[in-house]
Amino acid sequence: MGPPVDVAMVRRELRRWLQEPPLGPPGTLVLAACSGGADSLALAGALAFTAPRLGLRAGGVTVDHGLQAGSAERAATVADTLRALGLAPVEVLTVAVGTEGGPEAAARTARYAALDAAAQRHGAAAVLLGHTRDDQAETVLLGLARGSGARSLAGMAPVAGRYRRPLLDLERAAVRRACAQMGLTPWEDPHNTDPGYTRVRVRHELLPAMERALGPGIAAALARTARRLRDDADALDALARDALAEASAGGPGLDTARLAALPRAVRTRVLRAAAIQAGSPAGTLAAVHVDALDALVTAWRGQAGADLPGGLSGRRTGGRLVFGPTTAPPGR
Amino acid sequence: MGPPVDVAMVRRELRRWLQEPPLGPPGTLVLAACSGGADSLALAGALAFTAPRLGLRAGGVTVDHGLQAGSAERAATVADTLRALGLAPVEVLTVAVGTEGGPEAAARTARYAALDAAAQRHGAAAVLLGHTRDDQAETVLLGLARGSGARSLAGMAPVAGRYRRPLLDLERAAVRRACAQMGLTPWEDPHNTDPGYTRVRVRHELLPAMERALGPGIAAALARTARRLRDDADALDALARDALAEASAGGPGLDTARLAALPRAVRTRVLRAAAIQAGSPAGTLAAVHVDALDALVTAWRGQAGADLPGGLSGRRTGGRLVFGPTTAPPGR
Repeated sequence: MGPPVDVAMVRRELRRWLQEPPLGPPGTLVLAACSGGADSLALAGALAFTAPRLGLRAGGVTVDHGLQAGSAERAATVADTLRALGLAPVEVLTVAVGTEGGPEAAARTARYAALDAAAQRHGAAAVLLGHTRDDQAETVLLGLARGSGARSLAGMAPVAGRYRRPLLDLERAAVRRACAQMGLTPWEDPHNTDPGYTRVRVRHELLPAMERALGPGIAAALARTARRLRDDADALDALARDALAEASAGGPGLDTARLAALPRAVRTRVLRAAAIQAGSPAGTLAAVHVDALDALVTAWRGQAGADLPGGLSGRRTGGRLVFGPTTAPPGR
Repeated sequence: MGPPVDVAMVRRELRRWLQEPPLGPPGTLVLAACSGGADSLALAGALAFTAPRLGLRAGGVTVDHGLQAGSAERAATVADTLRALGLAPVEVLTVAVGTEGGPEAAARTARYAALDAAAQRHGAAAVLLGHTRDDQAETVLLGLARGSGARSLAGMAPVAGRYRRPLLDLERAAVRRACAQMGLTPWEDPHNTDPGYTRVRVRHELLPAMERALGPGIAAALARTARRLRDDADALDALARDALAEASAGGPGLDTARLAALPRAVRTRVLRAAAIQAGSPAGTLAAVHVDALDALVTAWRGQAGADLPGGLSGRRTGGRLVFGPTTAPPGR
């Protein structure tokens, strides 16, 4: 008799993502990042089973964000569970969460810095994250609210540097069943039910509303959309990198004739990248600024220039679009 | 004293979209398609004011779908309103709605066929449609449910052939205020509140749920997303057309080395277009089929082929991907 179906599925997905792209020679270390929640606990359990069969070593880390009373004890309990699964090394990473970008972003920044450092310290080739297809759907919806194009709808990458997300094609419900079938007891983070968090409202209110309005299967549709738009964004970003280099040749600024010949999707990406390169802050550079630069290229009627965040402006001089500090017009 | 602010805004948008792209010489006819609802009634009212000032003639049409009791009388009332606005010619287009693709799709097909015929009969250079930014947001959400990539999230085109949508950047609420400010009395289609229609659920349940979960401004964000993804899809579709022509040169089928060198976003579009060209029906050709073709190109390990809808399959022969009828393997 084989393992229960959900356990088998988690192991199969994990095996696939441990092999492609290849990780390294026998004995290579892989770390599971585990919050103690059902998803990452199932991941850790599957890793303990699968890694040795692929000639890999399996370790685990859990992050103590220090944000709730008892978090240190809880982290120690998670570490005990990881050790009991047979993972080694196992480490609790204690982090200090700042405030920049809000509580969720600050916790994420601190968490990834600690995971990076742990991977380096232990010589791990990969860190596995327990995000599921439902997390991906939530991320797409959060990106949709920003209205900022394919990249923000592309969700989380299955593979990004040393991070891999082997559960990204699996339903959360199936992963949770696998956790239970492995006999593991998850810890439910009370933050996950606090409607003060946008992601919690998306999970518990918006996705059910989408199913009611649009029919079942919406999480899968959002994940499919993310995968396709990631491909699109990768292709267009690569084209824009090449086009920026070509338009930059032969003088300061950008050749407007070359820019005008580009498809708009590529040209707006080139203009955005050039403005950031010139010193405009990415966080405040918005579509309205890029559109004003685009008008200098494609609808040139002698405009003075396009003001950009960071005290910069783009100006058209002859056949070139140049960036420089914004100066007050003479006599004013 | 000028017109009320919402009326001025509708007229300004209309003026912009009547001039860019240019429509034709003085006396060119433009038709407003008017259901009698507030959006298209405001559009017709603005057209009656704006067209003569741009040297254009303004006419109006309304479609009687014959689906509700009293629809002919209502259409005649709408036509009277259009005439009272000063539009000429004005015509009621009576259509017979079929059943193909469901009631909403069948009504749309019949409506556009009648609008096309009317534009030809009257020699109109453009037909104006009253879709607002909120309609666009709803269309994006309906596309999201399909999970089928940038094109289905790109919503409605501002300009497509003879059709223009001058209100696509305006809020529905503002357009409705403009209608009232013009002293026009709209007819509210009872279909617009029938929750049996997916679009009605999206409008009255899903969009409010999105605002609650994600914050205000979601319709604007969805419309911005649509515009960007339309640019992306246009650029990638054009690249795929060129790449298909290049990969098709020099023999039957497609050159797999050329295909493999393409970014995945372009390659999957080429493979989809080639399969449709070979006779696979677009409506049933899904991502799973395109992925199987892609594996023949990028993960070739001697697979027999990729079965496609329409009794076709793709096979790799030497360095070419060829399409042909699916045949049973010999001896079975």
